[in-house]
Amino acid sequence: MKPPCGVITLTTDFGVQDSYVGTMKGVILGIHPQARIIDITHQVTPQDTLEASLILENAYPYFPPGTVHVAVVDPGVGSSRRPIVVVTPDHLFVGPDNGTFTRIFEAHEIEGVFEITNDSFMLANVSHTFHGRDVFAPAAAHLASGRTPEEVGPRVTDPRQSEIPVPRIYPDQICGEVIYIDNFGNVITNISRKQCDAAVGDHAMRIRINGKVIRTIHRTYQDSEPGAALALFGSNELLEIAVAGGRADRRIGAGKGDTVIVDIQLDGQQRPPRETGFDY
Amino acid sequence: MKPPCGVITLTTDFGVQDSYVGTMKGVILGIHPQARIIDITHQVTPQDTLEASLILENAYPYFPPGTVHVAVVDPGVGSSRRPIVVVTPDHLFVGPDNGTFTRIFEAHEIEGVFEITNDSFMLANVSHTFHGRDVFAPAAAHLASGRTPEEVGPRVTDPRQSEIPVPRIYPDQICGEVIYIDNFGNVITNISRKQCDAAVGDHAMRIRINGKVIRTIHRTYQDSEPGAALALFGSNELLEIAVAGGRADRRIGAGKGDTVIVDIQLDGQQRPPRETGFDY
Amino acid sequence: MKPPCGVITLTTDFGVQDSYVGTMKGVILGIHPQARIIDITHQVTPQDTLEASLILENAYPYFPPGTVHVAVVDPGVGSSRRPIVVVTPDHLFVGPDNGTFTRIFEAHEIEGVFEITNDSFMLANVSHTFHGRDVFAPAAAHLASGRTPEEVGPRVTDPRQSEIPVPRIYPDQICGEVIYIDNFGNVITNISRKQCDAAVGDHAMRIRINGKVIRTIHRTYQDSEPGAALALFGSNELLEIAVAGGRADRRIGAGKGDTVIVDIQLDGQQRPPRETGFDY
Repeated sequence: MKPPCGVITLTTDFGVQDSYVGTMKGVILGIHPQARIIDITHQVTPQDTLEASLILENAYPYFPPGTVHVAVVDPGVGSSRRPIVVVTPDHLFVGPDNGTFTRIFEAHEIEGVFEITNDSFMLANVSHTFHGRDVFAPAAAHLASGRTPEEVGPRVTDPRQSEIPVPRIYPDQICGEVIYIDNFGNVITNISRKQCDAAVGDHAMRIRINGKVIRTIHRTYQDSEPGAALALFGSNELLEIAVAGGRADRRIGAGKGDTVIVDIQLDGQQRPPRETGFDY
Repeated sequence: MKPPCGVITLTTDFGVQDSYVGTMKGVILGIHPQARIIDITHQVTPQDTLEASLILENAYPYFPPGTVHVAVVDPGVGSSRRPIVVVTPDHLFVGPDNGTFTRIFEAHEIEGVFEITNDSFMLANVSHTFHGRDVFAPAAAHLASGRTPEEVGPRVTDPRQSEIPVPRIYPDQICGEVIYIDNFGNVITNISRKQCDAAVGDHAMRIRINGKVIRTIHRTYQDSEPGAALALFGSNELLEIAVAGGRADRRIGAGKGDTVIVDIQLDGQQRPPRETGFDY
Repeated sequence: MKPPCGVITLTTDFGVQDSYVGTMKGVILGIHPQARIIDITHQVTPQDTLEASLILENAYPYFPPGTVHVAVVDPGVGSSRRPIVVVTPDHLFVGPDNGTFTRIFEAHEIEGVFEITNDSFMLANVSHTFHGRDVFAPAAAHLASGRTPEEVGPRVTDPRQSEIPVPRIYPDQICGEVIYIDNFGNVITNISRKQCDAAVGDHAMRIRINGKVIRTIHRTYQDSEPGAALALFGSNELLEIAVAGGRADRRIGAGKGDTVIVDIQLDGQQRPPRETGFDY
């Protein structure tokens, strides 16, 4: 674990219309006046812990060691779900134990997970409806100002992990799905560059999604004709479908959960598709 | 009045698309380079000073003593409405004198209200259309850096107060209204926990809104079946209607201004409803 | 060139839903922990470099000398377009060389333009899709912490400039267009107060847009009847059409690119309109 650097990030589904996010920041500054608070996003789809997990995973490695990351997508607030602190070699994560940190658990050596039970890490009055303000913001502020994770409460040995959709990999096919649509309409899949490189190697391939076929993986958004769908590995090293100068999600009618197939041409001959209905 | 802590909050209806908010922050940092600027929201419904008042009221108590809160929802910019500073024991408020601070006046001992007339608290050129930039941001920055409210200009003895919808309380009924819909679709009323506790006491009660009846006040969003409307006291201690895992505003078709009735069963017998059309 | 003041502004079309903006901030704080990062906007219309230029132009003069302004609206990311630093007497600008800085070039003495080629101003791995994170954020952080523009790479003598729509000015007419609609629905034109004053002088005038005629330029939004369209010079000193208490864009059906005409009544007689279809 690294010493705190004073940076606290926030990832929530609170939106930016209400006073919720501002209130959390007020609480933080009341405890740790020199904290530097950075919004990752407050526009997580309400109550979608998996999406929060994904967004957080893309952003946190770029923060300095000793950053405290608060993630509050918390449909179970006030119920028995535990508030936790997750310790990795470089970062601390604070939030409800509801699967939001699944991708952190998978990606990292975990130095410890602790349940926040120590009252001195919380506001004096803890509501049943807003632990972002009453528990997670103050806990993060205390941790960022140097109090240790061991102080927050007992170790947790069974933190909750969500089922993350992972691609199925066959000798001649990778079968993945769309996991995110970004602000530009880029259609981001759960197939990583590493998985693709290992399975495809030097063989020819093609990508199929929603009845469309894409035969090349390009390097940049500009490597295709304007308006045409193209595939590339995005900034998070995941296979994505994009349209230069347009929105791929609309162009190919794609949404979260849609199937994405990478066909691998092992014998130099493109096999007939297993599914029908594609326009080859 | 507390000495300034260097924190300045912003509450506006400027949105985050335009350059207006960024410009205000530039002005602040030019005057007080070490200011820590926190957005409460910039998504107040355009020109809705009452909504601004409500959002500000929920957030400001969680900020450290000595915070300067700027609220600019200012349909009368450039007209004769006064720019003011409101001083409470712990906080300063800066904005137009148009009712935005009504709830501050009601909730607090007021140590003074001052009209901003001193040019040295403003930019050199004051436009007729953007006092957020030309008057309120610089005044807040000067106040946060230690200049005193008494310097800004003469005392105001008649600050404008808006008419706030307060619930009417009868022996057997509280008659309130919806005052806010939050990002999750929670339907927030103007009936406080305190008012409800005092009027209902140990009697049975039921809540009626838009033809729906809710017979219990729960503690958390999870205390009801998924999809069912439930009532609880939210993080601001106001009665709200919510739907676990869904949007209550859509579920019960509720919007700002809708009537909310708490029937109190004084004699152990539920009285027939005064209104008809409810599905009991 | 002024010494850096530690403030870095961000203007992008990344939106605030994804992790992109947060990631850039993480990179900045990793290099320059004391940077004060201010969002101008992340809601530029995707890939609209002209709009980015306009928003940036309105905001940056209000920031303290020595501010580093990052603007990333970058449809050509990963292609051969150059990453550049633009140096003016008071400010530094960092972003792709795609016309975003056209208005800076027009408004200012330029002390130098430099292409970012020095690896030590970039992250170790530069992707083909996210130079905001890999090139522009780290370059800005290094510049804000005191490294000089001359270090980033060779001088650029031919930075790209976009064609900006400028009004045509005739003896009896100014012919401009709508260049922006703001959050309040104000319809902002490319006709400046200076141009208007010079051409109109003491003569009578009228403004025509989308079949509507406005005969006066008011000082404030409140100088007209509620609901009526009025003209004024906005906070950026550009002629704009507004509606007190409403949205002018909807009231007059105006959008970006619509023609705006100022007729000047040189001989004391209002000339018949050149176009027809207006409701006088």
